[in-house]
Amino acid sequence: MQAFDLIIRNANVVTAADSFLCDIGVRGGRIAALGLDLQDAADEVDARGRTVTPGGVDSHVHLDQPTGDGSVMADDFESGTRSAACGGTTTVIPFACQQRGQSLRAAVEDYHRRADGRALIDYAFHLIVTDPTEDVLRRELPELIAEGYTSFKIYMTYDALKLNDREILETLSVARAHGAMVMLHAENSDCIAWLTERLLAAGHSAPRYHATSRPMLVEREATHRAIALAELVDVPILIVHVSGREAIEQIRWAQSQGLKVYGETCPQYLFLTADSLGCDDSFEGAKCICSPPPRDAGNQQVIWDGLQNGSFEVFSSDHAPFRYEGSDGKRAHGSDAPFSEVANGIPGIETRMALLWSEGVRKGRISPQEFVALTATNAARLYGLYPRKGSIAIGADADLVIWDEGLDLALSNTLLHHNVDYTPYEGMRLSAWPAMTFARGEKVWDGSALGTPGRGEFLPCARPEPAKARRRQSELPE
Amino acid sequence: MQAFDLIIRNANVVTAADSFLCDIGVRGGRIAALGLDLQDAADEVDARGRTVTPGGVDSHVHLDQPTGDGSVMADDFESGTRSAACGGTTTVIPFACQQRGQSLRAAVEDYHRRADGRALIDYAFHLIVTDPTEDVLRRELPELIAEGYTSFKIYMTYDALKLNDREILETLSVARAHGAMVMLHAENSDCIAWLTERLLAAGHSAPRYHATSRPMLVEREATHRAIALAELVDVPILIVHVSGREAIEQIRWAQSQGLKVYGETCPQYLFLTADSLGCDDSFEGAKCICSPPPRDAGNQQVIWDGLQNGSFEVFSSDHAPFRYEGSDGKRAHGSDAPFSEVANGIPGIETRMALLWSEGVRKGRISPQEFVALTATNAARLYGLYPRKGSIAIGADADLVIWDEGLDLALSNTLLHHNVDYTPYEGMRLSAWPAMTFARGEKVWDGSALGTPGRGEFLPCARPEPAKARRRQSELPE
Amino acid sequence: MQAFDLIIRNANVVTAADSFLCDIGVRGGRIAALGLDLQDAADEVDARGRTVTPGGVDSHVHLDQPTGDGSVMADDFESGTRSAACGGTTTVIPFACQQRGQSLRAAVEDYHRRADGRALIDYAFHLIVTDPTEDVLRRELPELIAEGYTSFKIYMTYDALKLNDREILETLSVARAHGAMVMLHAENSDCIAWLTERLLAAGHSAPRYHATSRPMLVEREATHRAIALAELVDVPILIVHVSGREAIEQIRWAQSQGLKVYGETCPQYLFLTADSLGCDDSFEGAKCICSPPPRDAGNQQVIWDGLQNGSFEVFSSDHAPFRYEGSDGKRAHGSDAPFSEVANGIPGIETRMALLWSEGVRKGRISPQEFVALTATNAARLYGLYPRKGSIAIGADADLVIWDEGLDLALSNTLLHHNVDYTPYEGMRLSAWPAMTFARGEKVWDGSALGTPGRGEFLPCARPEPAKARRRQSELPE
Amino acid sequence: MQAFDLIIRNANVVTAADSFLCDIGVRGGRIAALGLDLQDAADEVDARGRTVTPGGVDSHVHLDQPTGDGSVMADDFESGTRSAACGGTTTVIPFACQQRGQSLRAAVEDYHRRADGRALIDYAFHLIVTDPTEDVLRRELPELIAEGYTSFKIYMTYDALKLNDREILETLSVARAHGAMVMLHAENSDCIAWLTERLLAAGHSAPRYHATSRPMLVEREATHRAIALAELVDVPILIVHVSGREAIEQIRWAQSQGLKVYGETCPQYLFLTADSLGCDDSFEGAKCICSPPPRDAGNQQVIWDGLQNGSFEVFSSDHAPFRYEGSDGKRAHGSDAPFSEVANGIPGIETRMALLWSEGVRKGRISPQEFVALTATNAARLYGLYPRKGSIAIGADADLVIWDEGLDLALSNTLLHHNVDYTPYEGMRLSAWPAMTFARGEKVWDGSALGTPGRGEFLPCARPEPAKARRRQSELPE
Repeated sequence: MQAFDLIIRNANVVTAADSFLCDIGVRGGRIAALGLDLQDAADEVDARGRTVTPGGVDSHVHLDQPTGDGSVMADDFESGTRSAACGGTTTVIPFACQQRGQSLRAAVEDYHRRADGRALIDYAFHLIVTDPTEDVLRRELPELIAEGYTSFKIYMTYDALKLNDREILETLSVARAHGAMVMLHAENSDCIAWLTERLLAAGHSAPRYHATSRPMLVEREATHRAIALAELVDVPILIVHVSGREAIEQIRWAQSQGLKVYGETCPQYLFLTADSLGCDDSFEGAKCICSPPPRDAGNQQVIWDGLQNGSFEVFSSDHAPFRYEGSDGKRAHGSDAPFSEVANGIPGIETRMALLWSEGVRKGRISPQEFVALTATNAARLYGLYPRKGSIAIGADADLVIWDEGLDLALSNTLLHHNVDYTPYEGMRLSAWPAMTFARGEKVWDGSALGTPGRGEFLPCARPEPAKARRRQSELPE
Repeated sequence: MQAFDLIIRNANVVTAADSFLCDIGVRGGRIAALGLDLQDAADEVDARGRTVTPGGVDSHVHLDQPTGDGSVMADDFESGTRSAACGGTTTVIPFACQQRGQSLRAAVEDYHRRADGRALIDYAFHLIVTDPTEDVLRRELPELIAEGYTSFKIYMTYDALKLNDREILETLSVARAHGAMVMLHAENSDCIAWLTERLLAAGHSAPRYHATSRPMLVEREATHRAIALAELVDVPILIVHVSGREAIEQIRWAQSQGLKVYGETCPQYLFLTADSLGCDDSFEGAKCICSPPPRDAGNQQVIWDGLQNGSFEVFSSDHAPFRYEGSDGKRAHGSDAPFSEVANGIPGIETRMALLWSEGVRKGRISPQEFVALTATNAARLYGLYPRKGSIAIGADADLVIWDEGLDLALSNTLLHHNVDYTPYEGMRLSAWPAMTFARGEKVWDGSALGTPGRGEFLPCARPEPAKARRRQSELPE
Repeated sequence: MQAFDLIIRNANVVTAADSFLCDIGVRGGRIAALGLDLQDAADEVDARGRTVTPGGVDSHVHLDQPTGDGSVMADDFESGTRSAACGGTTTVIPFACQQRGQSLRAAVEDYHRRADGRALIDYAFHLIVTDPTEDVLRRELPELIAEGYTSFKIYMTYDALKLNDREILETLSVARAHGAMVMLHAENSDCIAWLTERLLAAGHSAPRYHATSRPMLVEREATHRAIALAELVDVPILIVHVSGREAIEQIRWAQSQGLKVYGETCPQYLFLTADSLGCDDSFEGAKCICSPPPRDAGNQQVIWDGLQNGSFEVFSSDHAPFRYEGSDGKRAHGSDAPFSEVANGIPGIETRMALLWSEGVRKGRISPQEFVALTATNAARLYGLYPRKGSIAIGADADLVIWDEGLDLALSNTLLHHNVDYTPYEGMRLSAWPAMTFARGEKVWDGSALGTPGRGEFLPCARPEPAKARRRQSELPE
Repeated sequence: MQAFDLIIRNANVVTAADSFLCDIGVRGGRIAALGLDLQDAADEVDARGRTVTPGGVDSHVHLDQPTGDGSVMADDFESGTRSAACGGTTTVIPFACQQRGQSLRAAVEDYHRRADGRALIDYAFHLIVTDPTEDVLRRELPELIAEGYTSFKIYMTYDALKLNDREILETLSVARAHGAMVMLHAENSDCIAWLTERLLAAGHSAPRYHATSRPMLVEREATHRAIALAELVDVPILIVHVSGREAIEQIRWAQSQGLKVYGETCPQYLFLTADSLGCDDSFEGAKCICSPPPRDAGNQQVIWDGLQNGSFEVFSSDHAPFRYEGSDGKRAHGSDAPFSEVANGIPGIETRMALLWSEGVRKGRISPQEFVALTATNAARLYGLYPRKGSIAIGADADLVIWDEGLDLALSNTLLHHNVDYTPYEGMRLSAWPAMTFARGEKVWDGSALGTPGRGEFLPCARPEPAKARRRQSELPE
């Protein structure tokens, strides 16, 4: 028997803390050795002169998720995970979304059916709790947490999804009692509805008014409220897709108080602005409709600052794959459809890693180690996939990206493997792209999409630790 | 005809800005002259060596307001306004509280009936909007504003009273369009309910747990939210009864942004603490149950700082007169009643002025001018009663207090004229009390309660100016 | 004998708190009565339809002050106070500036000689302490405070004037012990010198680089330091000529902590920007060289916000009168002179009041009462001139301005009465200007400059109260 | 030839990012392999069940440094590095301190003589710049940086050491131009001198008044100033030994602005308070005299929060070894000596790692990875010793600690190997201590101090990257 199935030689290995030159020995899909001059492998790849990072963990993606409003997600678990792998991501955590009236168990089973046999890379599930009945809170959630569904997402906006403050408190309490991580989409629903109604009444229905309908303050308010609720329950939370200064200020304030409040941001807040939704009433701007909306150049800088100073834990894609053309995507209700009826979300699962490596690492804004932390390690830790996923370490899955750098690549949707007919970043110039992606030691991308549907496995998640923040309300009964 | 009906001689007159020695000439209930050696009056009072301030304007009092839960307010417009006058207050602004399903007009008429023929001093009404139907928003409020009901109060907590965010936005919009001032009771209702349920389930039902059930963060959160909603609508607001540091920080942040956010505080946040609700499970602490609850010594200091640095505009009593004994007050549901069933609120209409003069002015914490601004002038301006009320100025109503200073008075409920059987400040030593109170030139207190029920008149309020804050959302349609 | 020397009839009187319609009766140079239908005067002026405010107290002006660098102040006490009176200012507080090696007493006597027989309006003196020897600290300052020189100015920059931190502490201690108000010019001297040297070495010597040499952070740093020193000594201070956001944030932080830190700002920070110093290397920009330099439009707005939210106590001119042409002003060292050799300061004693009334009051940014507080009352109180100066109140000096409003006046230096050959505000359109100015009941401006040199009197100042801030270092010995 | 000189088997390896179980293969003093079932070594150690971390990098220690005031440091490079090794530290960065008038080169040579042949572990040097002459700034510093002395320390206090603001700017400019890291001791010298003089004059000379003489605000002020100076020059800095909330707030504010401002803290701010300096006038408190002084329990918590939320980069000892007894330590000037004459500093080189592991990691306040980052990796990176030092990675020096956990050890000076006669932490109970320390693969501690003087080598440091912060003053010439 050979010592290794695969040796990647002369890799400039980067982890969330370190950077060193060595060979990587893979056996049984796992990293068995890091060392100089490893010997005896069935296969070898020479990475001389190249950086090797952990495969990405994209902890915020929507795949094959019914919307209920006529639009249909273009990526199922096959095209979505193929696109991920081609962009250097080797683990995804999509959502299993409860429908009101549905049991969480049924939702989970439904999403397993959607994923089974299709995924090219490994996946876990976050639960979206939309109907926290007594049975959900007392029985289903504890059971599902025990089975490896250890993170929930709570929406503070969208009529079909949102919880009120009381429901949020109840759900956070379960997270505290049973050890789960809670993600919050923080925007004030009533403010958005009020603004939207006024905008539409005034005839302001073009895509760009989507940004007007969700100003920074609605995100700031909900972020503050989410923090207060978590502070009361004394449980860590993560604020997803933070878009700019006012929300970051709330998060940093909380962190200063010793609260365990984590932040996530996404490529759209670094590379798009509200102007991406259009400077006139053209429908083309619908391509960039997502929530919260991108802000402005000043806020982009603040997001970069936040990546540098540790305000953010996670950099995810929030991949929400709707086609622009056709009857089931952005244009589902026609090109005259008001912004409020346009499918909300943008694709990004394949471009996330290369965008941040090109604009962040190669332009000196963040270090390679920060890149690894933000795109892989931190998410794996927060959501209980570590140490199996998220790093280059002995015993970890051999999920690896070998980078091709020094490129001058014009990003184009034709290069991508998702099932969406556009990318919001069309034409951006990138200086790096994954040369090869390995998932559990198997090459799934080398310029061609490799790997077969169904090779991806479901990953039950461990309980995140710690599940308690610092207690401040000492008299509060448990 | 004599030049003056009354001359108050040698008064050390204090206004919100000034302090000067002169005679005050009163004619027809109004101040006709300020000057040296005024001559020719039907009546004279010598104030030599004494300070004379404007009569207080208590802009936050509850009189004869049905509660719907078995407790009954002990003060109607007669006893309440008598108590006010004896404590140096010459104008009150109680609430006309809409009941759900009731028209605002009917509520206003109901409260007029309660006040008619009873009040000893002049009064206006704030409207409490609990049911902002289309008719209320589009017709009743504009009409009532035009008739002199130019301020609303909105509750963010209490099941029978609270509005949700959308309703708050709609109501704020009316205030903006028609020029009205909005007061907000800022506490997060869901948090309180969640905590209360847990406390009661744990057997923590004594009065002191009232404070536990409404920690500072529930006030901070609602304050932040109220500010965000007002910022969105672009309208000034006033946060009532601010209790401590975290809420003040939100208000000062808003003021720093150029937003018109005003703050009010009350004696209970300067002179009581959570310990006043009991250090054990004794029911006696029910006497100090009010919302938000008093905090601690550190927060008391922060409230003093806020009075000094201009964070607060108004110092009111939030007089909510429930008896301790008897079947209709704090004990209405028995001495074992959980805190959540105890009538919420404390008396203070008569003690407000003397407490602040004694502890604030005479101890050097605030200037006499700041006292006048906080207890009279600012409230008159904010609520459209100025220049008739709130100052010592030519043409203003001759509402005046001549102060007796250098006392060492042990405060006792037996000295007070309200119909409540206790004062939360029993035993506190005061160094000052009004020697005389004049209302429209008529003596209503000189150690004895004078003045007849019905002499007080209803005051229609002007529209506060400005009714717009700085606009920040430039694209938002009107 | 007639009751009054002068009655100003039907005045819309504005004080720092109030606004009311009445006649003003003047006797012996003082306000003897405010009332309706006053009778019996030697002289009458009808102010029907016009606002009457207190005459301005300009508490930050430089008159006839030797500079030691070749430039000469163009305004002595005659031209300077005439210009003041024509602009509605009736009291000035220029500086008596100690030269290093000189006794403070000698400085005071020198400035009295400069003022005697020349001033048209009343004046007091601030002391500029540049050489705090033991004799100055232990003997001269206490004596001078007792004689009515109750405020000092301390410079943190300018080689000939600045004190180091230790000297500032010693001087603040004297202020605390003997009751004086301390004004601080807060800019970090070393930073400015370092930047200036680099700019000049790089050939960046045009006037506009004056702004580059004193960025906001040098003001922020010194403001923070000044606050810390005052906090340590536990004494109130006033930060003069605050120019923008970063300094205001420091001041508001201090005020939030309960510290007595006051702020002053000036017209140049509302109406000029760094661009006023030139967008190219033209020497014309020298006309706007002052320190701190004007900032940008965003900072102008923050200064307006600060006037509205009470961050500022005083709005002064910082009148520093240097001619542009000629051998003794801005061009003293030629038109090629580097910015660092240009006389530092701009004129403004005559335009201060009208600029703030036109742009502040008439455009709805501040109330008339706030105008009075900022231009007259607060300064009088802070510097111990109250109640004689700063308000319209019984017994106060009859220093009054009757306003002409609704104008559309193009400001031009030809309209002004200072001895400077330009105004930085040339061409600005004003909607108001004083119609008449009265000083101690004597008309000194009615479209023509009236009043004779020498009619102005020296005003000894009372000790400001309180002279102690809140003590925080409890163990510190007195 | 064998594959490895040493294999440490079954180690629970912890890095600043990761944690994994493996064997560690050492060859030539370096880590040659991490893997499962490594084979063929000259020596083996079984670490089953034990955590292995990188050896500590203590980047703030004083060894054999002349004080000039009669006290003498008790630890030279031999005893000091032995003590370090016994406590799990394998690299130290002491100071080469320039004396005024001395060339930096001479100082460096002097310290090399002190270290040569004595050190048991590897060491680098920070330069202390006390006399930044033109020659120092233009020639010596650039040369020394090029030779591997890439960090300077600047003192803002202590008469013999401090630089003024201008000198700090000049020194920071050199750091920016040539790529060096600057450490700042941030306390306001004048404030301390002023307070000290007053305290001594009042007879307050006992050790505990040392804390009174350096209140939090003097640290806050200097921290703000240091940040402003670095912001102006646009260069990263590190604030050393941060003691509490007010300084952290400044640092976090700077980080929020995108400035590269790093923070360091030390065990004394987690485990001592001002009370450790005595609650009465006993001289015993001299044992805890260090600067800044320890604060209070509230500030201890804020320091913990700062370790958790990423405010701090480095946890160092600030080892300053003075004996308590004897004529050359704390008592050098007698037991009646005023606090200001007591040798300033406390020992801690040996206890740093175990204290933080016991109280931080084992009590769940920080993760093992955070421990590694704070005690080793971050310092190595900041000061240019990475990747040779600071991590467990292929090619890095085999500097390793095998931990003994689950102890209940009463800390006692008799257990320590420094040459100081006390530890400030006497009697504290520790749950962990290094079982073995390896330095470049050689065992230097296994319960006995091993290793021979002179085995430690001098480490030239690389230039830290990035040496520029975000530029804010765009017009400033280079």
